[in-house]
Amino acid sequence: MSDSQNDATNQQWGGRFSEATDAFVQRFTASVQFDQRMYKQDIQGSIAHATMLAEAGVLSEDERDAIIQGLKTVQGDIEAGRFDWSIPLEDVHMNIESALTKAIGITGKKLHTGRSRNDQVATDIRLWLRDEIDLISTEMNRLQDGLIKLAASEADTIMPGFTHLQTAQPVTFGHHLLAWNEMLERDFGRLQDCRKRLNQSPLGAAALAGTSYAIQRDMTASLLGFSKPTENSLDSVSDRDFAIEFCAFASLLLTHMSRMSEELVLWTSAQFNFIDLPDRFCTGSSIMPQKKNPDVPELVRGKTGRVNGHLISLLTLMKSQPLAYNKDNQEDKEPLFDAVDTVKDCLRAFADMVPAIEAKSEVMLEAAKRGFSTATDLADYLVCKGVPFRDAHEIVGKSVAYGLENDKDLSEMSLSELQQFSDQISDDVFEVLTLEGSVAARNHIGGTAPNQVREAAKRALALLAERT
Amino acid sequence: MSDSQNDATNQQWGGRFSEATDAFVQRFTASVQFDQRMYKQDIQGSIAHATMLAEAGVLSEDERDAIIQGLKTVQGDIEAGRFDWSIPLEDVHMNIESALTKAIGITGKKLHTGRSRNDQVATDIRLWLRDEIDLISTEMNRLQDGLIKLAASEADTIMPGFTHLQTAQPVTFGHHLLAWNEMLERDFGRLQDCRKRLNQSPLGAAALAGTSYAIQRDMTASLLGFSKPTENSLDSVSDRDFAIEFCAFASLLLTHMSRMSEELVLWTSAQFNFIDLPDRFCTGSSIMPQKKNPDVPELVRGKTGRVNGHLISLLTLMKSQPLAYNKDNQEDKEPLFDAVDTVKDCLRAFADMVPAIEAKSEVMLEAAKRGFSTATDLADYLVCKGVPFRDAHEIVGKSVAYGLENDKDLSEMSLSELQQFSDQISDDVFEVLTLEGSVAARNHIGGTAPNQVREAAKRALALLAERT
Amino acid sequence: MSDSQNDATNQQWGGRFSEATDAFVQRFTASVQFDQRMYKQDIQGSIAHATMLAEAGVLSEDERDAIIQGLKTVQGDIEAGRFDWSIPLEDVHMNIESALTKAIGITGKKLHTGRSRNDQVATDIRLWLRDEIDLISTEMNRLQDGLIKLAASEADTIMPGFTHLQTAQPVTFGHHLLAWNEMLERDFGRLQDCRKRLNQSPLGAAALAGTSYAIQRDMTASLLGFSKPTENSLDSVSDRDFAIEFCAFASLLLTHMSRMSEELVLWTSAQFNFIDLPDRFCTGSSIMPQKKNPDVPELVRGKTGRVNGHLISLLTLMKSQPLAYNKDNQEDKEPLFDAVDTVKDCLRAFADMVPAIEAKSEVMLEAAKRGFSTATDLADYLVCKGVPFRDAHEIVGKSVAYGLENDKDLSEMSLSELQQFSDQISDDVFEVLTLEGSVAARNHIGGTAPNQVREAAKRALALLAERT
Amino acid sequence: MSDSQNDATNQQWGGRFSEATDAFVQRFTASVQFDQRMYKQDIQGSIAHATMLAEAGVLSEDERDAIIQGLKTVQGDIEAGRFDWSIPLEDVHMNIESALTKAIGITGKKLHTGRSRNDQVATDIRLWLRDEIDLISTEMNRLQDGLIKLAASEADTIMPGFTHLQTAQPVTFGHHLLAWNEMLERDFGRLQDCRKRLNQSPLGAAALAGTSYAIQRDMTASLLGFSKPTENSLDSVSDRDFAIEFCAFASLLLTHMSRMSEELVLWTSAQFNFIDLPDRFCTGSSIMPQKKNPDVPELVRGKTGRVNGHLISLLTLMKSQPLAYNKDNQEDKEPLFDAVDTVKDCLRAFADMVPAIEAKSEVMLEAAKRGFSTATDLADYLVCKGVPFRDAHEIVGKSVAYGLENDKDLSEMSLSELQQFSDQISDDVFEVLTLEGSVAARNHIGGTAPNQVREAAKRALALLAERT
Repeated sequence: MSDSQNDATNQQWGGRFSEATDAFVQRFTASVQFDQRMYKQDIQGSIAHATMLAEAGVLSEDERDAIIQGLKTVQGDIEAGRFDWSIPLEDVHMNIESALTKAIGITGKKLHTGRSRNDQVATDIRLWLRDEIDLISTEMNRLQDGLIKLAASEADTIMPGFTHLQTAQPVTFGHHLLAWNEMLERDFGRLQDCRKRLNQSPLGAAALAGTSYAIQRDMTASLLGFSKPTENSLDSVSDRDFAIEFCAFASLLLTHMSRMSEELVLWTSAQFNFIDLPDRFCTGSSIMPQKKNPDVPELVRGKTGRVNGHLISLLTLMKSQPLAYNKDNQEDKEPLFDAVDTVKDCLRAFADMVPAIEAKSEVMLEAAKRGFSTATDLADYLVCKGVPFRDAHEIVGKSVAYGLENDKDLSEMSLSELQQFSDQISDDVFEVLTLEGSVAARNHIGGTAPNQVREAAKRALALLAERT
Repeated sequence: MSDSQNDATNQQWGGRFSEATDAFVQRFTASVQFDQRMYKQDIQGSIAHATMLAEAGVLSEDERDAIIQGLKTVQGDIEAGRFDWSIPLEDVHMNIESALTKAIGITGKKLHTGRSRNDQVATDIRLWLRDEIDLISTEMNRLQDGLIKLAASEADTIMPGFTHLQTAQPVTFGHHLLAWNEMLERDFGRLQDCRKRLNQSPLGAAALAGTSYAIQRDMTASLLGFSKPTENSLDSVSDRDFAIEFCAFASLLLTHMSRMSEELVLWTSAQFNFIDLPDRFCTGSSIMPQKKNPDVPELVRGKTGRVNGHLISLLTLMKSQPLAYNKDNQEDKEPLFDAVDTVKDCLRAFADMVPAIEAKSEVMLEAAKRGFSTATDLADYLVCKGVPFRDAHEIVGKSVAYGLENDKDLSEMSLSELQQFSDQISDDVFEVLTLEGSVAARNHIGGTAPNQVREAAKRALALLAERT
Repeated sequence: MSDSQNDATNQQWGGRFSEATDAFVQRFTASVQFDQRMYKQDIQGSIAHATMLAEAGVLSEDERDAIIQGLKTVQGDIEAGRFDWSIPLEDVHMNIESALTKAIGITGKKLHTGRSRNDQVATDIRLWLRDEIDLISTEMNRLQDGLIKLAASEADTIMPGFTHLQTAQPVTFGHHLLAWNEMLERDFGRLQDCRKRLNQSPLGAAALAGTSYAIQRDMTASLLGFSKPTENSLDSVSDRDFAIEFCAFASLLLTHMSRMSEELVLWTSAQFNFIDLPDRFCTGSSIMPQKKNPDVPELVRGKTGRVNGHLISLLTLMKSQPLAYNKDNQEDKEPLFDAVDTVKDCLRAFADMVPAIEAKSEVMLEAAKRGFSTATDLADYLVCKGVPFRDAHEIVGKSVAYGLENDKDLSEMSLSELQQFSDQISDDVFEVLTLEGSVAARNHIGGTAPNQVREAAKRALALLAERT
Repeated sequence: MSDSQNDATNQQWGGRFSEATDAFVQRFTASVQFDQRMYKQDIQGSIAHATMLAEAGVLSEDERDAIIQGLKTVQGDIEAGRFDWSIPLEDVHMNIESALTKAIGITGKKLHTGRSRNDQVATDIRLWLRDEIDLISTEMNRLQDGLIKLAASEADTIMPGFTHLQTAQPVTFGHHLLAWNEMLERDFGRLQDCRKRLNQSPLGAAALAGTSYAIQRDMTASLLGFSKPTENSLDSVSDRDFAIEFCAFASLLLTHMSRMSEELVLWTSAQFNFIDLPDRFCTGSSIMPQKKNPDVPELVRGKTGRVNGHLISLLTLMKSQPLAYNKDNQEDKEPLFDAVDTVKDCLRAFADMVPAIEAKSEVMLEAAKRGFSTATDLADYLVCKGVPFRDAHEIVGKSVAYGLENDKDLSEMSLSELQQFSDQISDDVFEVLTLEGSVAARNHIGGTAPNQVREAAKRALALLAERT
């Protein structure tokens, strides 16, 4: 696809050329193998263009109607699988135009008045990507909805919170899941920002400089649901920011999903054993009958590489390109298409799987108990009693050392055992030393206290509700 | 930097440890060599935290005042170059806290109540990056202002427009420059979106779970100019999206600047010779006295790799990290710092250089004449006269072939020469065949007509004015 | 593909599972859509394995023969397009094994004795990649052969040599082309190093730990043309270095080809006009009849992004993966396959195109004359005459200034004009001031003197001859 | 650094320039801030060049001696910290040359005869990188030596082998460690291949075309320990393959180290608890006294991003650059320098840490027992007894189900319990069902049997010994 055309039959530019394109080169430079995917947007753009051309007096009403009817016939043929895509016709645009002309005669050629394949393809990709972004937004809504509801229902489930993969302090499982939601919330924002920025119409930029026909760019922009026409024709045909911005969104989203996946894989290991994943998201082994492998999160984690790769692919592609359109840009589509597919598939898999995660709350609780996860709470307790911070730290250090020696968590020690280390400790210490006390004490916005988690889940759902 | 601490002197966590940290390991794991750069934000965050702690009754007013006074003294020492940064004290946070305690005694230790280095560093980077984004925005304003004004003053300067680096159609130099501005305009939007999303306060997330002290996160958020506190403590200490989103912005910006640079390098070559760059942005050669090298655009083009690299660095860093904080995250700062510096330097160099570009309008005009750049105009002219598109194309093809043979541009042919190919051609053809006619005819929004360029420049300047 | 299996029919691991795999998940986790490409290597590996199992007494000779015959039938079916690839059978391995068992009955199942899909897939990819590397080597030979021969025939063609895209010193076109060959020569070396390192047999590593059957790994290694068995079973099933090393080779190769492409695009522009590319590697424009676009080099330049992306994809994929096999690794194939295809296509296009490049030697010569490209020669001449370097430089500077003013190249000045600046200049100066003199003087290994270029071409061809 | 020079004092190229370089531009385009690191190689190259110039009769013996003496004085000044690096002098080359001339007078200028900064910098980086590669090789030897010896001493230590992070089959810890060694062994090979390819002398390529002086490139190549001079002068000054190839090596090495690090982090978690890392490679927490964080492996894992970033940085840098030298190339050094530093630091940290890993063999053994890791062995046992594979699998499936229900590993069942599922099971089953029996049975090259591990360790040490 480009402002160039290689039509062995029509040979519109053959006059300047003394030999036919090599068959291998023809395949090498064609894009129809992958850009046919945008046939619907190509036809949608052509219908808007034809409508505008009639309004502008370039086409008669009859010509417009014939073109629109012809395009709908072509679309029907494509969707019925009756369309033969031709490599010599290079790209989706020439294939459809050629079929249109075959169907309605020479009038079909008039459709291309006042436009070029350069602005046509820019329009098609923007329309296509906008459609896909809307589908992706729906899947994100579904995933976040399931995630937040699971979080709300696990607001009281205590688990160890980790830093450095070492037990740090107890948190609730609901709180942990809401951390995932925050990542997705930011991703959603970036996706909408990308949509907003791409939603301008390049149609009318023609090959690079605009056209001398009396086109009405506002009209086609409006017919296609764009917020406005783009500001500069040279930029319009050379810009691929939207593809890169989408891939940057996708890379961050998949990076987040790789973190969730990593945790799911850890949690389903025999060593953690924190959750169960439904069998339908796992596979077994033909030779090791005892195995149940968390294939879906593993695969999603692996797909992070894919989208990072596409991002680099597009950035490298655009580096150092002089304006306006260069053939290099044909390489924009496959990475973008695959990034979109990957994002959709991964979101769908997670939206199905996440609500079905089963927390093994007893195992989680037991793990939180080990590791002296309430040591910080004891120090804070002492400070509140007036013990200087430095002394408090030392008292806790000694208590932990005693616990390690006697294989007892702080909460498992008797009052008198604890009082060995400080006479400031009294009966109320157990309110903070228990895991329940510890999490309940972190009772501020963003904290892990169950009532805060429930409130946070409510706010998160409310945000979700505002989207639609 | 992390929730860990390695203070040979204080040895606060020494009790659990049986041997000192290896000297090499100490240097290997320390971050103070580079994170000292955030000293101002670290102190700013601590002052807000102390103010809040006093409000919450955790500190007395005297303690608060002592701490704030002490922090200001430390800041003064740092800025006067009187501060000894210590590697055993690991990071900017411990260095400053240690100096504070040395200055005001044990009260200094109380500052760390209800926070951790995990939320502290997250706060510092956000504050630091927000400040830098504001500086970058100012440089972008300056560059765009100079660029748009140059474009307005070159609205009538005709040059060849290229696709595939082949002469395609004439455009104006002002139009071409405004294409650059469109890229920058989108970049600016992405930068502001990044700022908006990062501008939330993680302070109060503590190590990972929040704190049991009665902190007021809204208050510190407000004191630090954040729009609100973050929603989830686990996410707050593990999130580095803002660094990645900034680098994605930076990669696109530098990619755009690499395209501008490529064109500047082309245009200053002997072969193009379209512009002159002021000597102060170029260098000569000790052994080739005839040379004048466009060093600044070349270097900016090269720096694209740098920021793409930092983007990949950060995406790789975060891939598969389980929550919450891991030591890996210490690796977030150097790529971010260097991306910020690179962006600022490149923008500054361009903001200085771009307004000083001198167009060689005669060379440009001559180049536009060669290459039959008005061939499209002739075809459009014929179509307007009622010639079928297919025939028009053939007529033009023959005219071009004649021109090639006789070394004449279309506009250099006489009327009778042109009429050999079609009797539909009459005197008015020269209105469209001249370069001036060709560009003037592309008279719609986004088109290259000089009056459209002037209007576009006005709109662009108006957008710029709205920013402040 | 993995050590797991999801066969709705056989349900070999169904016992531990309470629900069937979701249909979407089945498609999402299957690999047969792309890994069927390795069917030949899969069968080749199985034949070697069966042969060894018979030797080891695990299979009878009849069983072995039945299996081998069955596999050949399956291969025939695949190659005749009679094979139905099944997504529920997940991957190429299970599809073939299932077809084999259908063909020859329960004996087919015995083939999988002492191996696992984990070592099977590792074997298949290595075999497949080795085959492809050999094809790529052949294309590299063809490209280099054409390139070197063209260089030899252009050993005397003078063109401007550029630094900073500014005219620096004259070189010969042959010399420039040989610089391209040096890049390819290093690439070829890297490719062979990659082949050497991958050419070890992982077969026998089984799932991860080896097998308790009395397998003979040396025998299968030898049957498959591997240099030896791999050293460690855990590493054998988790290692994907070969794919990354191949992609690193591909990235460098395409980076080199992007540089050649950039030059081809520049040289075919109206501004440089140094060469002609045959029409069959270019396309025209339907609306701009005067255009001839260098599509092939543009597209190759764009494809650099693609392979850089795949490299990052695979590096990201492997980052932080614990041993041994994880489902993530299924993501290794598509980037590798596409990198291989891209490399083969780009090499083929260049191997066809490069020998057909036509140098416009007069334009090149004229360009070399402009820009005072022999200024260095004049300085060197003066130094040889005993003028101190510093003075020589000043003399040349003045001569160039005079030339600029009078629009004369150094070689176009008369002796008396030159002698204005130094009385050390005598008649022999023109031997060095002419372009021919300048290039001839750089007469050492690696220099641009035509006889050196011819010698270098001979050495390069000799190296090529040694390969086979 | 480039063929350009910006010397406010000398102003050698000032004549063609009408204004001084802007102070910001001067800093922006200077490289001396980072390339001073190569001062030793720069002087080493200059001494070789001077020696050759004297041999060639360009310098007298006295001049040569004065230059060499002067260079040694400069080196002494630099190493004593007495050298003032000047930004107006741009780069390491001009700084040293200027100091030389200040020291020995005008003779110093003669050193630059027959060379340019373009070949000079190419020589310097190659020399510098070759030195660093040799240091890195030494660290790799040390790491591998410690690793292999630890593996040999843990050849009998049984641990669970994982696929999908699920318990798969028992392996030995020594076997697992040798898998790490295989990764490093391949990395070492790649490093040596890189060294071999870079070890050619670009000196004599001059600015781009060679020089007209009668230089002897073989002689300088030999004096500098290069295997031979490079083949093409244009390529010599524009080639940066060695930097990219080194970064590709570094990315794979760090990817491998990220995998080791991931396992170390997992193994030190409370949930796995397989190993102890010495305190000196860990840090504690000021607020959580119970913590011991595996900082070193976490940080190494994080540094993977850094080197991947540098690789992309350099690939992006070189993409689409026309020959020969462009200022862009100045951007080659910082990524390379940082990649080298990162590799050296990470290797040093691991070489120190790995031998100090303490396996908790009882915990490992206990973990291996759980998860029915010998299920495959039971199936193989049955097949050997003549049970068809399909039936064997079913028998094992039932045994595992029974074990899950009764909380018994296969090896913990009595003979009669096992015989419930098949009468082919007899007393000898326990030889294979025990973990010891299972690992011992994988007794072929690459298998996990302890005697194989010991043999493999011997072979690995022998390979190491061959290196020196």
